[in-house]
Amino acid sequence: MERHKNFISFEGIDFSGKSTQIQLLLEKLNQYGIAPILLREPGGTVISEKIRDILLSPVHREMTEKTEILLYSAARAQLVHQEMIPLLKQGKYIIADRFYDSTTAYQGYGRGLDLEVVRTLNRFATSGLTPYRTFYIDILPEEAAKRKSSRGGEQDRLESGGLDFFERIREGFLNLCNKEPQRFIRIDGNRNRMEIAEIIWQEIMKIWSIRLEDFRTNK
Amino acid sequence: MERHKNFISFEGIDFSGKSTQIQLLLEKLNQYGIAPILLREPGGTVISEKIRDILLSPVHREMTEKTEILLYSAARAQLVHQEMIPLLKQGKYIIADRFYDSTTAYQGYGRGLDLEVVRTLNRFATSGLTPYRTFYIDILPEEAAKRKSSRGGEQDRLESGGLDFFERIREGFLNLCNKEPQRFIRIDGNRNRMEIAEIIWQEIMKIWSIRLEDFRTNK
Repeated sequence: MERHKNFISFEGIDFSGKSTQIQLLLEKLNQYGIAPILLREPGGTVISEKIRDILLSPVHREMTEKTEILLYSAARAQLVHQEMIPLLKQGKYIIADRFYDSTTAYQGYGRGLDLEVVRTLNRFATSGLTPYRTFYIDILPEEAAKRKSSRGGEQDRLESGGLDFFERIREGFLNLCNKEPQRFIRIDGNRNRMEIAEIIWQEIMKIWSIRLEDFRTNK
Repeated sequence: MERHKNFISFEGIDFSGKSTQIQLLLEKLNQYGIAPILLREPGGTVISEKIRDILLSPVHREMTEKTEILLYSAARAQLVHQEMIPLLKQGKYIIADRFYDSTTAYQGYGRGLDLEVVRTLNRFATSGLTPYRTFYIDILPEEAAKRKSSRGGEQDRLESGGLDFFERIREGFLNLCNKEPQRFIRIDGNRNRMEIAEIIWQEIMKIWSIRLEDFRTNK
């Protein structure tokens, strides 16, 4: 499997507004009778959720970078082969809240792992399955930190990396946007959230051939 | 790190007599004042043991081959970097009950995963750390099945592969012995267990420069 039309993903650092945009899109799609499956990485299967518990537990501070990327890849391999490929074959729509681009950005650029090995792992875990469009919501790490502190909340193991770490991750996402301009749509995350939702919606209408006459007025 | 003199491993399918030989060797070494650290894969660290639980749970029958090798590699990466490399740097001796050769044999040859990807994963997870000697105890899968049934015991997820699966694994081990004759010592597992122990002991005395005068008569 390569790029699959029914599969799109969202990328961005935490507090970029990614999850809000996914919710807005799901509500909108619902009005047009489309109910995509929302997948959150790592997770989405019994095995992948158990791997998620190991990855996100704050007590595992001794986890090495290599262990981390191998666990993310294992959770993804299970999700792709057990759920995603069968669902796409049935014609279902999938929206992923993060996919392998996060691995490239976080483990490759952020942690500094060899980018060629990261690519090999990504291809191996997904058997080549690639989103048709990836919406990258771009904010500065400083802005993310500001939004985070205004909302409180505890750190997980991954979030304890510091601003430098998130600078490198952002650089990674921007590099990916440059390398695959046909797949990536970079959106300025400082824009008004309804403006962002509209940019995404216009794009989705195009690629999923959604027509205004399918709008369900009686819902 | 490449091949490390203080690090040896044992390989073979279950019921080859591998664990018995490791116990005999440890007792013998003890008489000469050497107390190696025994490592069992997958496992050996808090994180690796949690990964082991996922791998060996009989309820995870839906686990894909790719998830499996990625989890083995993750458990190994943690063990190598958290425990093995620091121990070897301190001059400690390590005996491993299985190491990455098992991954090559079971997941590469047994499950049929691409051998080049398996090699990449093995190198990545271990950062190149390789046993100085690997004792491969060779028995036919039929013999293993006979020994198993005479002892009873439940199957874990991996053991449910069938005779064909173990034939391919054995072929994998034999190929490895041929490719790395300097590292591998193939031992016929049908020989008397004290004979096998003696072959191993003669080799260990050579590589670890053990002298008869170090024998502790007063123990």
